[in-house]
Amino acid sequence: MAREGRSLVEDVAEDILAMITIDKKFSAGDKLPNENELAGKLQVSRTTLREAIRILIAHNVLEIQRGKGTYVKDNLDLNKAYGLKELSAFKPDIQDLYEMRLIFEPQSAYYAAKRATDKELERILYYGKLEEELIIKKEDRTEVEQAFHQAIAKATHNEFMNQLMPVLYQAINKGVPLSDTNEEMVRNTLNDHRMIMEFLAARDAEGAKTAMKLHIIHAMRGFGFVED
Amino acid sequence: MAREGRSLVEDVAEDILAMITIDKKFSAGDKLPNENELAGKLQVSRTTLREAIRILIAHNVLEIQRGKGTYVKDNLDLNKAYGLKELSAFKPDIQDLYEMRLIFEPQSAYYAAKRATDKELERILYYGKLEEELIIKKEDRTEVEQAFHQAIAKATHNEFMNQLMPVLYQAINKGVPLSDTNEEMVRNTLNDHRMIMEFLAARDAEGAKTAMKLHIIHAMRGFGFVED
Repeated sequence: MAREGRSLVEDVAEDILAMITIDKKFSAGDKLPNENELAGKLQVSRTTLREAIRILIAHNVLEIQRGKGTYVKDNLDLNKAYGLKELSAFKPDIQDLYEMRLIFEPQSAYYAAKRATDKELERILYYGKLEEELIIKKEDRTEVEQAFHQAIAKATHNEFMNQLMPVLYQAINKGVPLSDTNEEMVRNTLNDHRMIMEFLAARDAEGAKTAMKLHIIHAMRGFGFVED
Repeated sequence: MAREGRSLVEDVAEDILAMITIDKKFSAGDKLPNENELAGKLQVSRTTLREAIRILIAHNVLEIQRGKGTYVKDNLDLNKAYGLKELSAFKPDIQDLYEMRLIFEPQSAYYAAKRATDKELERILYYGKLEEELIIKKEDRTEVEQAFHQAIAKATHNEFMNQLMPVLYQAINKGVPLSDTNEEMVRNTLNDHRMIMEFLAARDAEGAKTAMKLHIIHAMRGFGFVED
């Protein structure tokens, strides 16, 4: 996540990876330059380079062919944008997902306020109210929460957003249960939801956007995430 | 896109679809209520309902079983968030994609300014400058443009953003070639790119975000898109 979170070796590994996936300097099956040349190019010591290469071997990007040198794996799919995290079975960081929500959902609420049909607005409000009841009763609201946000995404009439939302939520649901761990969080969640619904009902796009942003910031602070 | 862009019949079709995909009122293989009941529930005429059902049959959501009634298709995958557009082979609207860029890329630039390693920043600036040259020479810059924006996405250190970017660009490249159709657009593009690079180099996150937003707004205006 933060720059400080990565070691020099990891940075070098990411750099070599980017030479393959972004720069297309090496293709699947290609031989890498020898150690001296590559270390010089990357301006790192040979020890650091060797460790970075070891990481990429462990992630199935590179392989050593005995007596011949280091190669980009033959079967590497170059149409994907890999990062090291992705290569290790892509378990996306929950903070990554919430940053994505923070980017995506306020604007979703904005478009929904402007574009929802009356039926779509009814559906959003129906799930919003249902969710309020579940929060108050402290019952599981995972599915209703998802329906609420999906109904908003659908009301944007933007097919890409409508498609993206379930991908995001499936990843989030895998990671972390919705948790209002204390009374303050319960109060914030209820308050934010009420505001989102009121602004949407009034078709106030800026209001809906801002209330949604607040809602996600509250959730992020609940997880202890801070901006960096 | 805009609410005005859909007919009542399409709204009703979307509404029935949402009863299946969001409300989970009907599952794959379920029989729908009879025409009178459903028309009453949806508060539309039977003629409108019949046309909406016809659309959903054409999109393989519903099927008529002779003498028995209307059914949700047995093999409908309910884990996806369908919209009518998606069902017709999902050719996403280019405006949908640019709205998504407008949401996503300014914040990407913001995080990149804060989090890029020096190597990552170098890579961004390298592609930015290369793209400038191609624009001036009026040569095809599709690949370099994508590398520029992908390098920014990678520098966010957010794996979800890194993954999302190529999906977005592949969809855009299918649809529309990059086009600076007149001198004004060329000037804007060069100017925006220069600003993005300067702010990133200065690690000015708010500046990079705002310049990227301007860049995408310019492109949208070039396509003739207006906010709604």
